[in-house]
Amino acid sequence: MMKLTDRDYMTLALQMARATAGQTSPNPMVGAVVVNEGAIVGIGAHLKAGEPHAEVHALRMAGERAKGATIYVTLEPCSHYGRTPPCAIAIREAGIARVVIAAQDPNPLVAGRGISMLREAGIEVDTGVLAAEAEKLNEIFFHFVQTRKPFVTIKTASTLDGKIATVAGHSKWITGKEARQQVHKLRQQSDAILVGVNTVLADDPALTARIDDQETKRQPVRIILDSSLRIPPNARVLTDRLAETWIYTTERSSPEKRAALEQMGAKVLVMEGTASVPIGGLLTSLGERGITSLLVEGGSAVNGSFLQARAINKIVSYFSCKLVGGADAPTPFGGSGLAVMNQAVELKGIRMEQISPTDFCIEGYPDWVCDRTAQERV
Amino acid sequence: MMKLTDRDYMTLALQMARATAGQTSPNPMVGAVVVNEGAIVGIGAHLKAGEPHAEVHALRMAGERAKGATIYVTLEPCSHYGRTPPCAIAIREAGIARVVIAAQDPNPLVAGRGISMLREAGIEVDTGVLAAEAEKLNEIFFHFVQTRKPFVTIKTASTLDGKIATVAGHSKWITGKEARQQVHKLRQQSDAILVGVNTVLADDPALTARIDDQETKRQPVRIILDSSLRIPPNARVLTDRLAETWIYTTERSSPEKRAALEQMGAKVLVMEGTASVPIGGLLTSLGERGITSLLVEGGSAVNGSFLQARAINKIVSYFSCKLVGGADAPTPFGGSGLAVMNQAVELKGIRMEQISPTDFCIEGYPDWVCDRTAQERV
Repeated sequence: MMKLTDRDYMTLALQMARATAGQTSPNPMVGAVVVNEGAIVGIGAHLKAGEPHAEVHALRMAGERAKGATIYVTLEPCSHYGRTPPCAIAIREAGIARVVIAAQDPNPLVAGRGISMLREAGIEVDTGVLAAEAEKLNEIFFHFVQTRKPFVTIKTASTLDGKIATVAGHSKWITGKEARQQVHKLRQQSDAILVGVNTVLADDPALTARIDDQETKRQPVRIILDSSLRIPPNARVLTDRLAETWIYTTERSSPEKRAALEQMGAKVLVMEGTASVPIGGLLTSLGERGITSLLVEGGSAVNGSFLQARAINKIVSYFSCKLVGGADAPTPFGGSGLAVMNQAVELKGIRMEQISPTDFCIEGYPDWVCDRTAQERV
Repeated sequence: MMKLTDRDYMTLALQMARATAGQTSPNPMVGAVVVNEGAIVGIGAHLKAGEPHAEVHALRMAGERAKGATIYVTLEPCSHYGRTPPCAIAIREAGIARVVIAAQDPNPLVAGRGISMLREAGIEVDTGVLAAEAEKLNEIFFHFVQTRKPFVTIKTASTLDGKIATVAGHSKWITGKEARQQVHKLRQQSDAILVGVNTVLADDPALTARIDDQETKRQPVRIILDSSLRIPPNARVLTDRLAETWIYTTERSSPEKRAALEQMGAKVLVMEGTASVPIGGLLTSLGERGITSLLVEGGSAVNGSFLQARAINKIVSYFSCKLVGGADAPTPFGGSGLAVMNQAVELKGIRMEQISPTDFCIEGYPDWVCDRTAQERV
């Protein structure tokens, strides 16, 4: 049998972490593997906030065989007493001889402390094994910990000629079933999903995450931008009770309408001013309310506002190989736009995927996002 | 040594044919391979209209060894006396025992005649080996022979958010050098290249094919759509003499302006009516003048007219992973557009290619093109 390397074990730990996508928020996805004399003796992943960390699961499984073993963990073990005791102590007490870590803790206030605790206990520590992969896996968590604002992903779906609807406003459907199913997974993995009130007025969407037409167990909060509260009381997002609905409005909206919406179970948040809802203030507010990731499925105007505010962390663009034409058909990003082509916002870390014979997806990160993952790719 | 198959030899013949792209118009690209007792004894390709066909080159190289040999040819050997004698006769006289053919002659009036001549001479004939590849290779030739109109390729270059320029009209540059170099190859392989007069007024382009900034030997005819002759006399396409310039106008234009342009060396073609130049009539006129392939590099309006007229055989869309936004920024296909999404023009035979870290290309064929190649893919 070929001897496995540190990277092989870390790859396994990352695979386990990845499998928990959409269930650990606001915590990161973490996987751990315990190896003793070339044999895997423990594996674990963090499943849900409030439950044991990945290291604890893996150490429990290993039991006595953790003594003198190596543990591979995708994120620096914690050093603080939170809802669970520090993993650094659990590792020491289990008798682990060596710890291999992919990514350091993203919080600048505690980064490196777990590693110090382990080294002070005489444990050998190696870091940086598959660090870029581990950081990308937890790009949402890393961003939130460092900014206290949600990681903003803008999802668009266009025809090959760049239209998100026809001149008459028809948009059903641009992409096929496979791509739409992927979007529901994106929804399921997001803490919140956002549209403008115009989308509610035009399409009356449910904005829930559905797999095979069934609502998934965990549902994102539905965020509606509605500066003057034009949302109709019979909108699905107000009546179906399938997920929370938060409406961000401004001082322009009537207090009576606000009260009526609260009565229906919606949360109404009033931002200062009477212009449109300010994107910066919105993100601060969402962060304060524990929203770590926001999926924007806005129309042209809403997406344009996020672009204008430079408040985009990631773009997920679906394209379908069809043409509709139309000088007045809407495009994914409207607003006032940039004047000069060489000032365009470049995307980095681009990934392309063909989803079906006619549909494909392009992901990328605007170049104003200066995370380490993106820098390493340059 | 592994025995090569019919497909292997035909693949070689197709490779040779492909290498002549852009130099055989109005003739097809054709390759031929002569094989005698497992050894390649002759290879040939048709290099230029008026010169010997591929079979003749390959048979000459084979000489006496053509006796009893097999010839692989990508297109049915001709049966008529044109600028060269029929290849079917040359094959018979060389003593070939077996002929393997990829694609039949696309001209319904002569299709199968070459094959019949060969069979009547007692030669074994097999057809259909890599037929789809051979037809795609000569998609231009096949279309022209069957319709007497040029094969229309629309090339577009957009940002990821579907813009071909900023709101201020800036379009330099959307894609990087690699993609732009590919476009020059596309130009070099086209009989003609078309823009609207607005593009001339905005950018004053040279519209020549350039490799490493040098004009290639063969230049496409430059076609300008200009219904009222607004082209300025100092436009590059009129003054640089690097290629022919044909201006399609309507009865709306002044006879004096027409005469002045002819004086400068341009060809002025007047279409009936005073509205915009009709796309159908334009294509008939270009076909009559021997233009077998037309590369449209129009702006939003010109491309929209071709879409409206269903006069597109192929789309070559370049995308660059950047965002510019802008509700009023132009998109690749303007015009009045389709009203309902499920009536969108679907593309078939889609090919995606990443050109550089940020740029990629998607090619496809509108589903109103019912050539055999497209049908076989369904």
